[in-house]
Amino acid sequence: MAKTDDVEIGEPGAKLPATTTTRSGTGLKKALSIFDFITRVCALVTTLAAAAAMATTEQDLPFFSQFLQFQASYDDFTTFSFFVVANAIVCGYLVLSFPFSIITIIRPHADGVRLLLLIVDMVMLTFTTAAASASADTVYLAHNGNPSTNWTGICSQYGDFCQQVSGATVACFISTVLFMAMMAMSAIALRQR
Amino acid sequence: MAKTDDVEIGEPGAKLPATTTTRSGTGLKKALSIFDFITRVCALVTTLAAAAAMATTEQDLPFFSQFLQFQASYDDFTTFSFFVVANAIVCGYLVLSFPFSIITIIRPHADGVRLLLLIVDMVMLTFTTAAASASADTVYLAHNGNPSTNWTGICSQYGDFCQQVSGATVACFISTVLFMAMMAMSAIALRQR
Repeated sequence: MAKTDDVEIGEPGAKLPATTTTRSGTGLKKALSIFDFITRVCALVTTLAAAAAMATTEQDLPFFSQFLQFQASYDDFTTFSFFVVANAIVCGYLVLSFPFSIITIIRPHADGVRLLLLIVDMVMLTFTTAAASASADTVYLAHNGNPSTNWTGICSQYGDFCQQVSGATVACFISTVLFMAMMAMSAIALRQR
Repeated sequence: MAKTDDVEIGEPGAKLPATTTTRSGTGLKKALSIFDFITRVCALVTTLAAAAAMATTEQDLPFFSQFLQFQASYDDFTTFSFFVVANAIVCGYLVLSFPFSIITIIRPHADGVRLLLLIVDMVMLTFTTAAASASADTVYLAHNGNPSTNWTGICSQYGDFCQQVSGATVACFISTVLFMAMMAMSAIALRQR
């Protein structure tokens, strides 16, 4: 009997669960869930900032040519349109995931919910990574051009445009890191008994 | 005592572990570990194929201009160089991860190893996703160009080059999916007691 003294078995009077859990494990799981929730809020802020910064990107040059006014907008690039859509989807998911994250705080042993969050977070991680890196690729080309293909950089003319787009890309990379942190926390919590 | 009859406690004679485990859980964990190993081998094949296909991409056009011969090589694009490096790193990691994957087959309850694999797999997932999507972005521009920036498509001239680069990108996207499968299996196995 002495062996089971340090073991807590759910609520008293509840039926014996299939797994027995230690008190320190419960505390750690709860702490990780709280951190997960905080990280999730931060990720919402960064993805929202990325989507908003990208979607409002537009620059008119302060002169006219003989034929047209020069203007750069995010939707001139398919990549940047994808960036906005992907970040909007991730934002929507993050809002929907808040209740599930709260469930894992209230019930630290709700490992099914945690597993679900981990797997959908993984899908969203690939979304943000894909958006951020494709956008970074286009920003790189816009800055430096590519001499082999005669693609010239446009950032010398459209400085503000490039700066705003780069900012949005950086925000998206920060979301990527936050998603990785959330997934690592979920995995560590899943391992705890 | 009747309660613990359906519970298997490690090897007989070993000291009582902190967690108690069911036989069906052990079987599932073992099966998932075996699938993980198989998926890992497939991922090695696809990343190796992606890296090799990209690194050998080169096309000379069958005519000379007045001044130079037209030639396209993967290292004309920074993105494609990154693609090769990222895929090579992932290949190296996959080879190094085989012993760890085998450990989880032999000892299905080695959850520490499984957690380690899950977290490093996550980092490698972002690598492959970033490489694949940045490369897809460049391939898209090479195919379609971008009228707003006067970037013209080059695939009408360099058809073979574009085809091989697209193939490598697709192989890399397949690795991404395989990594996601591996991570999902690791997470499900971690949840099992």
